[in-house]
Amino acid sequence: MVMEVEIEQVLHMKDGQDDTSYAKASYMQKQVISLTKHIKEKAIKEFYCKKRPTTLGIADLGCSLANSLTVVSDLIATIDKAHRGLGNGPQEYQVYLNDLPRNDFNAIFRSLGCFEDKLKQQLGDDFGYCFVNGVPGSFYGRLFPSNHLQFVHSSYSLHWLSQVPDEIEDNKGNIFLARTSPSNVLEAYYKQFEKDFSMFLSCRSKEVIEGGMMVLTILGRKSNEIYSKESCNMFDLLATALNDMVIEGFIEEEKLNKFNIPIYTPSATELRYLVEKEGSFTLNEDHVSEVSWEANDLNKNSSNAVHYDFVKCVRSVAEPFLILHFGETIIEEIFLRYTELVQVSMAKEKSVFINVTVSLTRKG
Amino acid sequence: MVMEVEIEQVLHMKDGQDDTSYAKASYMQKQVISLTKHIKEKAIKEFYCKKRPTTLGIADLGCSLANSLTVVSDLIATIDKAHRGLGNGPQEYQVYLNDLPRNDFNAIFRSLGCFEDKLKQQLGDDFGYCFVNGVPGSFYGRLFPSNHLQFVHSSYSLHWLSQVPDEIEDNKGNIFLARTSPSNVLEAYYKQFEKDFSMFLSCRSKEVIEGGMMVLTILGRKSNEIYSKESCNMFDLLATALNDMVIEGFIEEEKLNKFNIPIYTPSATELRYLVEKEGSFTLNEDHVSEVSWEANDLNKNSSNAVHYDFVKCVRSVAEPFLILHFGETIIEEIFLRYTELVQVSMAKEKSVFINVTVSLTRKG
Repeated sequence: MVMEVEIEQVLHMKDGQDDTSYAKASYMQKQVISLTKHIKEKAIKEFYCKKRPTTLGIADLGCSLANSLTVVSDLIATIDKAHRGLGNGPQEYQVYLNDLPRNDFNAIFRSLGCFEDKLKQQLGDDFGYCFVNGVPGSFYGRLFPSNHLQFVHSSYSLHWLSQVPDEIEDNKGNIFLARTSPSNVLEAYYKQFEKDFSMFLSCRSKEVIEGGMMVLTILGRKSNEIYSKESCNMFDLLATALNDMVIEGFIEEEKLNKFNIPIYTPSATELRYLVEKEGSFTLNEDHVSEVSWEANDLNKNSSNAVHYDFVKCVRSVAEPFLILHFGETIIEEIFLRYTELVQVSMAKEKSVFINVTVSLTRKG
Repeated sequence: MVMEVEIEQVLHMKDGQDDTSYAKASYMQKQVISLTKHIKEKAIKEFYCKKRPTTLGIADLGCSLANSLTVVSDLIATIDKAHRGLGNGPQEYQVYLNDLPRNDFNAIFRSLGCFEDKLKQQLGDDFGYCFVNGVPGSFYGRLFPSNHLQFVHSSYSLHWLSQVPDEIEDNKGNIFLARTSPSNVLEAYYKQFEKDFSMFLSCRSKEVIEGGMMVLTILGRKSNEIYSKESCNMFDLLATALNDMVIEGFIEEEKLNKFNIPIYTPSATELRYLVEKEGSFTLNEDHVSEVSWEANDLNKNSSNAVHYDFVKCVRSVAEPFLILHFGETIIEEIFLRYTELVQVSMAKEKSVFINVTVSLTRKG
């Protein structure tokens, strides 16, 4: 329980606007949102044309900072098109942006004026009303009243576990799942994901109306091997940096042995299995996509290039955990070493993130 | 319109935890909440026993920082009692905390864990679910979908106007309504309040369900005189401080002439008239209460005394406006002078804030 509280306090994207902050380092997440756009749009259009609700309750779970409003305005644009086709009256959208209580909601709220202006510019003043609310809390518990939501979206959040799995003390030298992790560690990670994801589905099943839909994108893997390189490599390299620092006396071995990252990267097969087992939702489709560790060349060279730096991205996510466990003084050293290892790895082989997206409908 | 944007940006209680910040200086607001508790409880109990909704949508409009959760837990405790008497299943509460986008929602959200623990301690683990959302936006516009709320509360917020009234350039030497204000200034202030308050009622009439209730407490006055001393004295004294500083060359006369505080303190009669004129709500009762400018002696001497300082309270509210208009450098000087004037005034006569509370029901 103590651990759970700790994770909730640490697991928020870095506040503020410094160079490594999440808002700036989230180019990758933007790519994912764009790659999975067609699935979300298909789902919400299908739902809307069937149910035609006067008020549409949309939740973005684990919204973080930068990208949530992009997803929301894409969804609203899709519905607006369908809505005008059907010749209905003004549409009301109630949008819930959820994240842990330590997320920087102030920053999101202060950007809403701009968001609304853009929406009106894009869709016309008569598009209806969009009411945006902040919802602080863990999506592994209840967040909304019963039968309250029509559409749920979550991108790049559900791979976070609610806690570091219990009894994985013998994952020595590793900080995540790895080829050298003992089988009980592999199992403990999977069991924790199963428990958390099932709890997520169970909570949402009470909150989403019959026929309502969810589109979830999770950092995952293609391989059936739980410790496959495609999902573990980024943390393998971080473990290497930390192990080197143990050898050189910067970090105590005992301290490193106790450090594990609370993430699980499921395969589409695992997600299908868990959705069926929990039983409240029908799986309409799943989709696997890839995002390269490197920004693509087109973006790199264009004048309004988004500067994408894989290390910054990992750092923005992992740094709070590293600081909590190892203290602030060695952070720069850790990431100097990590950057070198990533450069060597990128030069040797192409690395990608695997994203698994599932589209679900709440059963009757 | 420029002015409106400015007011929204300035009109948020001071962030953070310094000595003059609103959270600490809001002892007075706490007193008001306590004084009007019975009206809120009567209203929500009456509504609940009649309608018995499974989910109860409660909004606190202009929640600011410190006191909103006290009101909410009082309301929930009242319903919980009624609910258990009726032997219903678990009750769901959807609580919306509204304030302008620049309010410090992060601070509210980070205190929610503590709020939920207290609620469970007080009512038992089986009281139901309480879902708390942040709603950034002006209550002079739409904030919620149609027919969405059962109960609306607002305390010490609706005296804020959406803008400084137009065409009050000749309110020279004053910064608010005063005995020496020309009649067109008095009228402009009233007209702005009428416009804003009617807009507030009109927006809420769409959002509150038929039979739903609102309890609104507004800084007001007993007297029929719009410039009565009971509502104007605190700003009269501030105007005196500022005028002295004009005479001594700290402030340009022209600059002071352009400064007016966007507040209106209505009488119960005015509120009754405006509610009837707008037409969507029935007025069940109105109630006038007083809070002294000074903390009472009991609190002053008790070991857990709330340090109440009238000047700090006014400062926490007025400072952002003063800084915007006169700049930061003379703020300390203004409040040094203001403190002296307040001390003299308090020694001479007992001053009180007048609160007008109205309880309203949405017509069918």
